[in-house]
Amino acid sequence: MGVDPGLTRCGIGVVEGSVGRPLTMVDVSVVRTPADLDLSRRLLRLENALDEAVRTHRPEILAVERVFSQHNVSTVMGTAQASGIAILVAARHGLSVRLHTPSEVKAAVTGSGRADKAQVTLMVTRLLRLAQAPKPADAADALALAICQIWRGAAQDRLAAAVAAQAGRSAR
Amino acid sequence: MGVDPGLTRCGIGVVEGSVGRPLTMVDVSVVRTPADLDLSRRLLRLENALDEAVRTHRPEILAVERVFSQHNVSTVMGTAQASGIAILVAARHGLSVRLHTPSEVKAAVTGSGRADKAQVTLMVTRLLRLAQAPKPADAADALALAICQIWRGAAQDRLAAAVAAQAGRSAR
Repeated sequence: MGVDPGLTRCGIGVVEGSVGRPLTMVDVSVVRTPADLDLSRRLLRLENALDEAVRTHRPEILAVERVFSQHNVSTVMGTAQASGIAILVAARHGLSVRLHTPSEVKAAVTGSGRADKAQVTLMVTRLLRLAQAPKPADAADALALAICQIWRGAAQDRLAAAVAAQAGRSAR
Repeated sequence: MGVDPGLTRCGIGVVEGSVGRPLTMVDVSVVRTPADLDLSRRLLRLENALDEAVRTHRPEILAVERVFSQHNVSTVMGTAQASGIAILVAARHGLSVRLHTPSEVKAAVTGSGRADKAQVTLMVTRLLRLAQAPKPADAADALALAICQIWRGAAQDRLAAAVAAQAGRSAR
């Protein structure tokens, strides 16, 4: 399950697959919370929606976009808070959480870390063999995160295990 | 209840009182989560600690420091996520949440929005008539937030009500 965190729109995409096999979209949705609502109620609604999505789909891993502070200063706090809620919900369900930067996600689905939104949407549509492009961009981004996790995640975890093993040997 | 949000240290201070009457410290604590723990487990521990604090003290209002993105770029994401968790816990318990900027808090307890940490700690110690200064700074900051809420909160709420009433008249 990929989550493109946000307060106004939070994309949730569920993809099934493994490296070297075709990918299948299981579900995609966008949670919206009105900007004129209290921040506390917005976070609560988001939590409920994410919790329901995790209960419904029982994903193996939750992949969340890594938020950077230098990007979109006006909305970054809300985005960071939304990502915190997503990570919290995952932890509560005992799910592993993986963070991917926007350029890692773009590179995974388009081959270029500097691809634009249209390219990402196009590739997500192709890779999942969808009849229509997922809209809005947050929906496509959430699916791209899930695809990135499937393709990059296994390699990342092997690398982390190798580093940990090396550290273990050095410590002895 | 004042919360100075943070992942490594999160201050929680509970103060009882009203404008024009002496203030009393009910409780102060600092939740710590180890930096080498998974982000998801850190957020989960923080949620549990905040939830327990709210259940124990049943505060009327949760005052949280407003996080700015231009401040401490390296830790701001964790701080924003921690504040999101605090606000979420408050919302779940039906508590009102108020945000105060660091300079509002400093101005409330020291008279100057540019006061340093030592001044804030000194004034919190005096205002709450404590035998010892609260430590670390996160504990003092959480108590300062609670005091700020008691002193500024009532005025802020009256102002908000007046603005809402004015907007209502203009709309008619």
